[in-house]
Amino acid sequence: MVAGPRRRGAALVKALHSAVLEELDEVGLGRLTMDGIARRAGTARTTLYRRWANPGELLLSAIGEAYPVEEPSPVAGELRADLIRSLELLVEWARHPTARAVQAILAERRAHPELAARLDELFDASGRRFTATVLDHHARLGTIAPGSVTPLVENLGEAMVVKHWIDVGREPDREYLVQIVDQLILPVLGDRSAVAGPCAGP
Amino acid sequence: MVAGPRRRGAALVKALHSAVLEELDEVGLGRLTMDGIARRAGTARTTLYRRWANPGELLLSAIGEAYPVEEPSPVAGELRADLIRSLELLVEWARHPTARAVQAILAERRAHPELAARLDELFDASGRRFTATVLDHHARLGTIAPGSVTPLVENLGEAMVVKHWIDVGREPDREYLVQIVDQLILPVLGDRSAVAGPCAGP
Repeated sequence: MVAGPRRRGAALVKALHSAVLEELDEVGLGRLTMDGIARRAGTARTTLYRRWANPGELLLSAIGEAYPVEEPSPVAGELRADLIRSLELLVEWARHPTARAVQAILAERRAHPELAARLDELFDASGRRFTATVLDHHARLGTIAPGSVTPLVENLGEAMVVKHWIDVGREPDREYLVQIVDQLILPVLGDRSAVAGPCAGP
Repeated sequence: MVAGPRRRGAALVKALHSAVLEELDEVGLGRLTMDGIARRAGTARTTLYRRWANPGELLLSAIGEAYPVEEPSPVAGELRADLIRSLELLVEWARHPTARAVQAILAERRAHPELAARLDELFDASGRRFTATVLDHHARLGTIAPGSVTPLVENLGEAMVVKHWIDVGREPDREYLVQIVDQLILPVLGDRSAVAGPCAGP
């Protein structure tokens, strides 16, 4: 138990978010308890139960708090820059401790199906996949044909970044993100200006 | 030690491949030993050393043996069918115990960098990514523009299948593989016949 000044509101929530993430790294998803998190945060278990029903809800709250929001440019000409920025946001987020928490939940999906389902809801509420918010925005602006933004197209950027991690064991550099946008996402959307191909204009 | 008839040649290699995969599932990559594998296979450690220098080489031999080879159609009109078949081959291979071995090596890349590097060599020799052999073949036939087959394009199909596994926790069905080909790979190659988009013909 850590003695300290009494924390309230945002400061308390922040401390509890840190505590659940540290506890997760140390004991793993299957052994998270309200007791353990409370002890680590130096607070009473009842304080946790006032806001969250169980350790999973507290963990989801930490994940939601750190999950970034894409902010597409208001102008139509910025599709390419917005897509690159979305993928940079993904790479930045992946350095945050909550990215490890997401990985843990997905890896142990069978053992914790209800937590994985709640995580899916959280992603849906936060704009689904990285690049999806940008794609929807530019479809509304008319930069891209609305029908071309399918769930698979929305998942393409994330899939290539995640695959890079698996194959190479480290985060992709900016040049790789640019290639994902120029060689894959823009061509799939029907914008072949970035690559040579049969659809490219003269 | 399992007593049994003396095995030679292909039968012996097959038994040792099974033994290394079982041993991996039980003790993990970091604790594979020639002793443990030999004991499991009911053979002498010297028998293993006659062919392989260490447990990693024996594991790579098992992975290489089970790794499937894509066989593209000799005719030009079969690009779409060949791509779907490549992704089906990937999903089938992923059910094999050596797919878990590949996953283990990639996940522990930092602890076993030399093994991960040898795995990359093995993939390069086996046609790199799933779909790459098919893409190269059809580029030679002239079905697709040679410049459109970049390393990222070659990795696209695998990336979408792997991402599906991570997101959903189970293998994709055939319909999903067809969508990967129709909504992503063919459009990226400049074939927009499968989707509505600004490049599609009348």
